[in-house]
Amino acid sequence: MAFGLLKQKKGIIFGALDENSIAWHVAERAHAEGAQIVLTNAPVALRMGEIQDLAKRINAELIPADATSEEDLNALLEQSMEIFGGKIDFILHSIGMSLNVRKKRDYTDIKYEWMAKTFDISAISFHKLMQGAYKMDAMNEWGSILALSYIAAQRTFPDYSEMAESKSLLESFARSFGYHWAKKNNVRVNTISQSPTMTTAGSGVKGFQEFFNYSDKMSPLGNASAETCAAYCVSMFSDLTKMVTMQNLYHDGGFSNMGMSPDVLDM
Amino acid sequence: MAFGLLKQKKGIIFGALDENSIAWHVAERAHAEGAQIVLTNAPVALRMGEIQDLAKRINAELIPADATSEEDLNALLEQSMEIFGGKIDFILHSIGMSLNVRKKRDYTDIKYEWMAKTFDISAISFHKLMQGAYKMDAMNEWGSILALSYIAAQRTFPDYSEMAESKSLLESFARSFGYHWAKKNNVRVNTISQSPTMTTAGSGVKGFQEFFNYSDKMSPLGNASAETCAAYCVSMFSDLTKMVTMQNLYHDGGFSNMGMSPDVLDM
Amino acid sequence: MAFGLLKQKKGIIFGALDENSIAWHVAERAHAEGAQIVLTNAPVALRMGEIQDLAKRINAELIPADATSEEDLNALLEQSMEIFGGKIDFILHSIGMSLNVRKKRDYTDIKYEWMAKTFDISAISFHKLMQGAYKMDAMNEWGSILALSYIAAQRTFPDYSEMAESKSLLESFARSFGYHWAKKNNVRVNTISQSPTMTTAGSGVKGFQEFFNYSDKMSPLGNASAETCAAYCVSMFSDLTKMVTMQNLYHDGGFSNMGMSPDVLDM
Amino acid sequence: MAFGLLKQKKGIIFGALDENSIAWHVAERAHAEGAQIVLTNAPVALRMGEIQDLAKRINAELIPADATSEEDLNALLEQSMEIFGGKIDFILHSIGMSLNVRKKRDYTDIKYEWMAKTFDISAISFHKLMQGAYKMDAMNEWGSILALSYIAAQRTFPDYSEMAESKSLLESFARSFGYHWAKKNNVRVNTISQSPTMTTAGSGVKGFQEFFNYSDKMSPLGNASAETCAAYCVSMFSDLTKMVTMQNLYHDGGFSNMGMSPDVLDM
Repeated sequence: MAFGLLKQKKGIIFGALDENSIAWHVAERAHAEGAQIVLTNAPVALRMGEIQDLAKRINAELIPADATSEEDLNALLEQSMEIFGGKIDFILHSIGMSLNVRKKRDYTDIKYEWMAKTFDISAISFHKLMQGAYKMDAMNEWGSILALSYIAAQRTFPDYSEMAESKSLLESFARSFGYHWAKKNNVRVNTISQSPTMTTAGSGVKGFQEFFNYSDKMSPLGNASAETCAAYCVSMFSDLTKMVTMQNLYHDGGFSNMGMSPDVLDM
Repeated sequence: MAFGLLKQKKGIIFGALDENSIAWHVAERAHAEGAQIVLTNAPVALRMGEIQDLAKRINAELIPADATSEEDLNALLEQSMEIFGGKIDFILHSIGMSLNVRKKRDYTDIKYEWMAKTFDISAISFHKLMQGAYKMDAMNEWGSILALSYIAAQRTFPDYSEMAESKSLLESFARSFGYHWAKKNNVRVNTISQSPTMTTAGSGVKGFQEFFNYSDKMSPLGNASAETCAAYCVSMFSDLTKMVTMQNLYHDGGFSNMGMSPDVLDM
Repeated sequence: MAFGLLKQKKGIIFGALDENSIAWHVAERAHAEGAQIVLTNAPVALRMGEIQDLAKRINAELIPADATSEEDLNALLEQSMEIFGGKIDFILHSIGMSLNVRKKRDYTDIKYEWMAKTFDISAISFHKLMQGAYKMDAMNEWGSILALSYIAAQRTFPDYSEMAESKSLLESFARSFGYHWAKKNNVRVNTISQSPTMTTAGSGVKGFQEFFNYSDKMSPLGNASAETCAAYCVSMFSDLTKMVTMQNLYHDGGFSNMGMSPDVLDM
Repeated sequence: MAFGLLKQKKGIIFGALDENSIAWHVAERAHAEGAQIVLTNAPVALRMGEIQDLAKRINAELIPADATSEEDLNALLEQSMEIFGGKIDFILHSIGMSLNVRKKRDYTDIKYEWMAKTFDISAISFHKLMQGAYKMDAMNEWGSILALSYIAAQRTFPDYSEMAESKSLLESFARSFGYHWAKKNNVRVNTISQSPTMTTAGSGVKGFQEFFNYSDKMSPLGNASAETCAAYCVSMFSDLTKMVTMQNLYHDGGFSNMGMSPDVLDM
């Protein structure tokens, strides 16, 4: 069911890879709500092909961009504005990857070049994107910029390793740049802190299934799915939330405010 | 502009007094979004008459209830279900009043009978309402219960006095009961922590105008209005936010995450 | 081992019942650190006799007071100042009791007269105590007022029931009154949010042992004991912490910032 | 006045530059409390000479180390253990520097190589230090690792620029590594979030004096000085705080929990 919440709005969505991606669902739902979309991902991700089908289906342009490259990001913003025939109303940043996790280096045995790359991909890309858009005045008045985060930014999940710091950085960028965007032209910047989600990336992490189940038991409503997250993202892009900014918003079935669940004790 | 977000949904709205009330705007917007509404307020508030005009305009029933009386609350819930021909989808609790503030007792010279009454009206009423609805199984699956709060629950605003504690209580009730509602039938419970608002109640508090201006300067987007708050409440009642529960959500133009604003230093 | 941290300091300690009480350990440690102590508890608690032995051993006066009675609290403050030959340097509030829990009423079936009494004993007593001391100017410059809390003030532990709200209230009183005390004469007010502790009161709660074990596993350093809590309280009474005020300080082996512990998953 | 709180304890202190440095005061106070100290700073800082006088006065060794160099940090740890004749009991990390701020680049015009360097100096150095110490098993059981932070990690102070992100990173490292240290040998890791302090570094930042005054007015006890911060650091190194870990502790005269101060409105 759709409501026309994003009619006449135009947005860029980062990070759709396949139908397990949250960004994939956001793109579909945003389209259903009337938005015009530009999809983007790293060149290597685009070669997989699935996202091309999505692009066709939702009538979106697909622009490859390395999110760590200011040049690529600026080109993406410019091309998007050309396609849209005007400025941008919303952006979703849904990018994260840890080299040390992927290469199975423990948190107590970090390789710092990899950590730098992890931060660059997962968090600094968000600042680069906002700085590019800020400089070229690319956002419409009352636009909405959103990034996906995780509660590891506040609490320790040992297996999440340096992604904890990536998310702390990401949320800090949202707060800091949120001030400047508000002052510039009433654009808001927020992060959504989403339940663990069975994405292709997430499900590869060590012990993910056990952790997913734990989180599901701990959350009174259960883990939030990618579909419900897409609906929440749409609410954040819509005019229903114009005065919400610099916030980290938990979309997690209540996990973040549970101290202990009887269901976990019973496990 | 409306989207039909609350079509076929039925809700009870507490606390509409006059056109400055947030609850007033929520009622109007919820009606515009397709909801069927029951309005309620204390018998003395209903005598003022303005709310009767609102009720007519949005085709709502108006049921007087003393929010501190379990009996009144239970009768309200029962009558509402009769009117709706079924269970309830959403509830807004927008009630608050401090006897010690009203009677100009300092926070260091509290009269404790008045404090007890303040808590009863401003916070315990929320538990009584939820407990009544819980016992009579009055909420539809995936329903949404919402109360309006203020950041004094987290930080000290000396003039706010015992309302700080009232809001701390209120938010705690939302978290605690949120667990039970989720487990019962996936109902969510949240609070919105709203900017200071020029309501008839608020504007009577000592130094309110100065404080309102300070908050406006400190908030990068400025203070959030009652109208924008109504839109945000509607998003919380709608199916866009089904997995958000036990949260306190700042609707405040960014105030809550500002440490210092250059605009305030320039004042 | 003691350091003389509280030499020449005088303090009142509420809530010592028997050797399992945190307050008991605080009294012993404060005495060892050179403080002069007045012990107080409800008249009924004093009849148990154990606290009388403690009082003798640490050379403390023992003054019965009903913590819900302004009259009793004022008498206690006056008598203490007489005994001390001057004002008070520190106070520990370690009081909490839930009638609904004790009488096995569910959180969704609260009896509100009992809830009011619970709040009065567990939280409002803290305001009454501070208000009494404020009015009679009973605290020395740079004094320290402390109350014991629990993380249920922030997160939901279903079995903790209305004590969650009691602790939210308690912490809010600490923040609010902390402002006024700082302005008056640089007195600080804080709460310590302590691990679940095997006190005589705590261990009687439903499922406490299981919960204690869960918390112990979730906390990287394990649950904090009453003895270590006493040491921490002493640091808060000492001149090492003069500029810490209006804070809630977790003394919990790291529990509060853990999202998930592998040890819990392995349970 | 000293209490012998750190008798037989040995610690490394980073970041003492001159008598305005917090680390300088921590070194003096830790020495007065009976600790044996190794002082360290960047080679360029040591050339200034003042720290050499401090080292002599408190009978400390002075070891230059570039905090971004794993090699230097490891050499420092090894030499310190040789000097101490055993493992380390406490470490203070008091390092921070923003290249973009120093070179007057706006937050919306960041140069990313500089940001990377800023993070490396101000935050990643903390991880490198802990990782080095972890691998060589350099900390004694129940040791204490501490870093100095600022509330910009939670809230936006526009002039603080990328140091906000540096502090977010720093605090996240404390939480994440705190878990591993607790599990390894009960070492605790915390950050102290200190009032703005008139250090030689701090006072050079744009508009610092105005901001310092604002913070002082907003804090009910006023801004915390370097001397009082040193006393608080000592409490965190001492055995009074053994079960406090993974925390960010505000030492700020109450600033962090103030929403609005009448003193600021009166400014």
